[in-house]
Amino acid sequence: MIKNIFRFNLIDSTTIDAYAARINDEYKNGQIGYYHLPSTGLKTVDEIYVYEKSLSYIKNIVLVGIGGSSLGVKAIRSMLKSKKQKRQLYVLDNVDPQSYKAVMDDIKFEETLFIVSSKSGNTIETITIFKCILDEFKPKNLSKNFLIITDSGTNLEEFAKNNSIKVFNIPQNVGGRFSVLSAIGLVPLALCGYDIKELLEGALECKSRYIDKNDTSLMAKAYHYAIHRNAHINVVFGYCDRFREFNDWYVQLWAESLGKKKGFKRVGRTPIGLIGSSDQHSFLQLIMDGIKDKTVTFIKICESTEVAVPGISLKGLEECDFVAGLSLNRLLNAQCDATAMALVQEGLSVDILELDRLDERHVGFLIFYYELLTSAVGVMLGVNTYDQPGVEIGKRILKTMLKK
Amino acid sequence: MIKNIFRFNLIDSTTIDAYAARINDEYKNGQIGYYHLPSTGLKTVDEIYVYEKSLSYIKNIVLVGIGGSSLGVKAIRSMLKSKKQKRQLYVLDNVDPQSYKAVMDDIKFEETLFIVSSKSGNTIETITIFKCILDEFKPKNLSKNFLIITDSGTNLEEFAKNNSIKVFNIPQNVGGRFSVLSAIGLVPLALCGYDIKELLEGALECKSRYIDKNDTSLMAKAYHYAIHRNAHINVVFGYCDRFREFNDWYVQLWAESLGKKKGFKRVGRTPIGLIGSSDQHSFLQLIMDGIKDKTVTFIKICESTEVAVPGISLKGLEECDFVAGLSLNRLLNAQCDATAMALVQEGLSVDILELDRLDERHVGFLIFYYELLTSAVGVMLGVNTYDQPGVEIGKRILKTMLKK
Repeated sequence: MIKNIFRFNLIDSTTIDAYAARINDEYKNGQIGYYHLPSTGLKTVDEIYVYEKSLSYIKNIVLVGIGGSSLGVKAIRSMLKSKKQKRQLYVLDNVDPQSYKAVMDDIKFEETLFIVSSKSGNTIETITIFKCILDEFKPKNLSKNFLIITDSGTNLEEFAKNNSIKVFNIPQNVGGRFSVLSAIGLVPLALCGYDIKELLEGALECKSRYIDKNDTSLMAKAYHYAIHRNAHINVVFGYCDRFREFNDWYVQLWAESLGKKKGFKRVGRTPIGLIGSSDQHSFLQLIMDGIKDKTVTFIKICESTEVAVPGISLKGLEECDFVAGLSLNRLLNAQCDATAMALVQEGLSVDILELDRLDERHVGFLIFYYELLTSAVGVMLGVNTYDQPGVEIGKRILKTMLKK
Repeated sequence: MIKNIFRFNLIDSTTIDAYAARINDEYKNGQIGYYHLPSTGLKTVDEIYVYEKSLSYIKNIVLVGIGGSSLGVKAIRSMLKSKKQKRQLYVLDNVDPQSYKAVMDDIKFEETLFIVSSKSGNTIETITIFKCILDEFKPKNLSKNFLIITDSGTNLEEFAKNNSIKVFNIPQNVGGRFSVLSAIGLVPLALCGYDIKELLEGALECKSRYIDKNDTSLMAKAYHYAIHRNAHINVVFGYCDRFREFNDWYVQLWAESLGKKKGFKRVGRTPIGLIGSSDQHSFLQLIMDGIKDKTVTFIKICESTEVAVPGISLKGLEECDFVAGLSLNRLLNAQCDATAMALVQEGLSVDILELDRLDERHVGFLIFYYELLTSAVGVMLGVNTYDQPGVEIGKRILKTMLKK
C-alpha cells in the first residue's frame, strides 16, 4: 500500500505515546469531525449514487467553490488523471473574469450541473460567481441544474430549500480544509465517475494503521517537525505531474492549520510543494546550498512500466545512454532516490513515501495520512489546528472599503 | 505601464548608489548576457519570423525542455492566455510517462514541430524524451519536424547539423533561468503567434527605467530584501489565474539564483508564489498569524471591465450584495487591496505592482523587472547569482546508481 521510509531517526519514547493518546482523545471525543469521515462517509455512498443515477441528462459538472471547497476535489481529480472521467469537471475557484468566461464558453446550460459549495454559505467569491451564473442563463427552475453543498442551517441551505435545489450537508464539526472526504469531495467526485467507496476504504485503512493499531511512526515524524524549529519549511516533493494539485491541497492544509498566534507568540510551519524531476532544475539548488531550514518528503509511485526509454544511441550524445532500457517511471524514481541521497548527504531531514500506485484507495490513504500528520503537528505545537482567525481582518477591510 | 507602490520605507542612500553602480558594471562589462537580450533579441526577430513563415504545414508545437528551457515559455503563454494561439503549444518538461503519452495521443507527427531545447545539450530528461519521440515516430528525415535550441558548440548542435535540423543558439553567457528573452523563449512564442517584438520592447523599457535612467526604487527594494534576514521568505501574490505559471518561473529564478553556499556559510531567500483571491483561503492565514518571516509583493492588473457582478439579491444572502455593480476584476483588485492593508497592519513588508494590462509589452517589462531584482539581491547577498553548483551532486549519484 504505502510505505514510509525515514532517512532520519524517529524517537520512540513516552513523549510520543503521550501525544498519540491526545490524538486518540481528539478522535474519540467526537468534536473534530474529520476523523470520522471515512466511516460515516461510507454510509452516504448509496445516497450519492442514487442521486447520480437521476442525472442522466448531465454531461458537465461546474464546481463553484474556493479554498477547502475545491482544493481537495482538484487534488484527487488530478491524482486520478489516468482514469477517464464520466463527466467533464470544471472548477470555478476564483473571481477571475477570464477563467469564468472560459468555462461559460465551453458548456451548455441544459447539460450542466452547477455545484455551489460553501461551508459557511456566504463565501463572497462563491455567491458572486453563483449570481453571475444565474444572470448569465436566467433559469426559471433551479432544481435540475443546481446542487448546493453547505453546512446545515446556513442561509444558503435555506435558499436551496426555497428553490427546490437538492442539498448535501457537511458535518458542522468538519473544517473546510479537512472536508474532502465529506459531501464536499465525495459528491463531485462520484458524479465524475471516481470510486468514492474505495477512496473512503483507503482513508479507513490509514486511520486503522495509525489510530487503531497505533503505528507511532506518524506521530514520531510529526514530533520531528514540531521540535526542529530551525527546519520550519516542510517541502513535499512529488515525483510525477499528477501530484501538482495535491501540493496545492497540502499547502492549504499545512499553512492554514499550523500558522497561528499563541498569545503574543507566533508559530507556524511553511509548506512548499514541488514536482520531480522538473523542480530539480528549479527549487533544488536552494534546498541543497541555501539555509538549512527545510525538511523534504519525497512521494513516488512504484508501479508503472509504461514508456520504455528506447535503446537508441544518438551520435555525440552517448553520455545520455546510461538510462537506456529503463521505463520513464523507473528513471523518475531513480532521480527521486538520487536527489534524496544528495539531500541526506547534506544533513537534511528526508523521508520517502512510496505508493504502490495512484488509484482511489491509495489516494484516500494519502489524503488521510496528511490530515492526521497535520493534527499531530498541531497538537505538538500547541495551536488550534482547526480555526483560521487571521483571514477575517481582510474580509472586514474589504467590506468597509466597498461600502464607502 | 507598471507602477510599484511601496508600503514600507525605501532607503535612499549612498549604499544604494554604490550597489546600483555595481549592477551597472555587471551590465556594461558584458559578462552577464541576459542584460543585453532585449536589444540583441530585437535583431533576431526578423530571422525568427522568416523561419516561422516556412512552417505553414505545422499546426502544433511540442516544446521538449526542462527548467529554464520551459518555465519562461509557460509563464508567458499563461499570462497571455487571453490571446488566441496561432498554433497549439504542448510542453514536455518531465519524464512523466502519463504526461508524455497524453501529448503523443493528441498530435499528428506530420503537422507537429518538436523543439528540443537544452542549453548544455545533454540534459538527461530532454534527450531521453527526444529519443522516445524518435522511437515513437521513426522519422527518416528530421529536418521538417524538429528544431534544436542550444548553446553553440554543444554535441546537440553537432547532432542537429549532421541531421539537417535547424538550430537557434542561446548566447553562452546567458544562464538558463535568465534565458526566456533569448531564442529559448522567443522562437516557440513567435511560432505560436505572440508578438515577440513587443515583448522585447517592454523589457527594453524596463532596462531603460532602472539602468539607463537610474530609477533606484528597484535597488532599494532589493536592499530591503537583502538586509532583512528574518524576512527570508519572499511571497509573490498575483491577483488573477494567469499568474500561476509566472509564479513557477519566479520560484526557479529566485531559488536557484539566491540559494548559495558562501564558504562555510549558507545564504538564500525562499520564494513562494500565490494566486489571489483563491489563496486568501489557503496560505494567507500563515502570513497573517504565523512567524513574521515573509515579505509580500502583490501583482494586480488595472484594466478590465469584463463580467459585471449582477445586481441580483438572493433571499437570505443579502449580506453578499455589497459587491454588486463591480466588475469581477474590480472585486479581485479590491480584495488585493484589502489583503495588502491587513498585512501592513500586521507590520509585514508589502508592495504592490500595478500593471495596466497583461499584453506582450507589460509581460516583457515584468519578466525583466524580476530578473534585475534577482541580480540586485544577488549582488547584495554577495553570492554568484548565475551558477547552480548544488544540483550536480544528485546528477552524479544518479549516474553512479544506474551504471551499477
